[in-house]
Amino acid sequence: MRPSIVLFGDSITEQSFQYGGWGASLTDTYSRKADIVIRGYSGYTTRWALLLLHHLFPAGSTTPPVAATVFFGANDAALKGRTSENQHVPLEEYKENLRKIVRHLKECSPAMLIVLITPPPIDEEGRLLDAVSSYGEKAMKLPERTNEAAGDHANGCIEVAKEVGVSSINLWSKMQETEGWQKKFLNDGLHLTPDGNRFVYEEVLKVFNGASLTAPDMPSDFPHHSEIDHHNPEKVFQERGL
Amino acid sequence: MRPSIVLFGDSITEQSFQYGGWGASLTDTYSRKADIVIRGYSGYTTRWALLLLHHLFPAGSTTPPVAATVFFGANDAALKGRTSENQHVPLEEYKENLRKIVRHLKECSPAMLIVLITPPPIDEEGRLLDAVSSYGEKAMKLPERTNEAAGDHANGCIEVAKEVGVSSINLWSKMQETEGWQKKFLNDGLHLTPDGNRFVYEEVLKVFNGASLTAPDMPSDFPHHSEIDHHNPEKVFQERGL
Repeated sequence: MRPSIVLFGDSITEQSFQYGGWGASLTDTYSRKADIVIRGYSGYTTRWALLLLHHLFPAGSTTPPVAATVFFGANDAALKGRTSENQHVPLEEYKENLRKIVRHLKECSPAMLIVLITPPPIDEEGRLLDAVSSYGEKAMKLPERTNEAAGDHANGCIEVAKEVGVSSINLWSKMQETEGWQKKFLNDGLHLTPDGNRFVYEEVLKVFNGASLTAPDMPSDFPHHSEIDHHNPEKVFQERGL
Repeated sequence: MRPSIVLFGDSITEQSFQYGGWGASLTDTYSRKADIVIRGYSGYTTRWALLLLHHLFPAGSTTPPVAATVFFGANDAALKGRTSENQHVPLEEYKENLRKIVRHLKECSPAMLIVLITPPPIDEEGRLLDAVSSYGEKAMKLPERTNEAAGDHANGCIEVAKEVGVSSINLWSKMQETEGWQKKFLNDGLHLTPDGNRFVYEEVLKVFNGASLTAPDMPSDFPHHSEIDHHNPEKVFQERGL
């Protein structure tokens, strides 16, 4: 009975139900209004996301989601010639993959609110420290991701959103407006701290609210308990055709 | 493609995606293995839950949940003659309602893991303080819930679970084994603190694991990124019939 909102993305989406996660916060905000469905795939790029697309968003579904966040790019922007090069997806291909994802979602439902989210900025020092804590002396000497490369993919994401007429969040630039974003928002130079999760949650909520997907204005799936006449509990359900 | 696990209950379930909530923690634990579906209804009793049952668990569904927690009783145990008396459901009716819920769930799917959870213990001092902070001088002078009454309903819940052969968690007695449970686990004498949420999460997980619903042993919905050959990403998907 409730509409669904799908969070489609990589590890930053997959981890969004950890302590203070942005997915959990959205679930709480849309309590009894919409189901938040998590479809996050750690390590995935847009190239591999295309292989999931038709499974996750089957064409012809009678109950397509009312909204979807598409949050890829952090892996696509991994550099060639460094330790995560298998995940590298060149900028133009990344943009074309995003276009294909949007096109498919629109085919599933022209009314779906589609929100492209750019990769977050990269704290290169944080990436190197994380590698040392995992691999010691064998750790990479150069970061596998740079903030500049993430910024190129972020710009590409925003360009595609404008071109195809969907909403977007430039997380890469917005996070960098806050002093000390490197450690405040990122715990290993890439993934989100509780503050970073809060930031993403608030940005997503702004876009949802701006598109009239405002939780307080949406109908609850069943009567509030205060509306139930305890002498005749069936009444309010019958009045609503339940 | 993933199985679903439904959390059916009152406000303690509805609020389970707040910061550190037990529902959010389960979602994270079952990441890419199962979808945690939240069906919590603040203020609801088992009497009103019966009116939702056929909507939430439609008979004849081809994809019934693999597990469901049934977590009612905190409102049923509200006392007659006090401020929440409209929610009071007598013990024998509460037990009969739980039997009806279990019967319906078994009809939906004989294989469903059904877990009855008792109401938590009540910190009566916490309830009175909460009323004063909300209503000042007009606050109730006697708590609308007592630990003893919650205990009676908790015992009734465990009796029904044994009688009908489903799993159960005696939250009422288990929480009271910890020194200082009143403030450690409950923030207003009734609802859960982060520690209380952690407690419920761990108890639910124990039952799920004991019933072979162990997340690490369940298949992931798609290949792990390390299994994807970046020269031929389709290969592993094709091998799995995707």
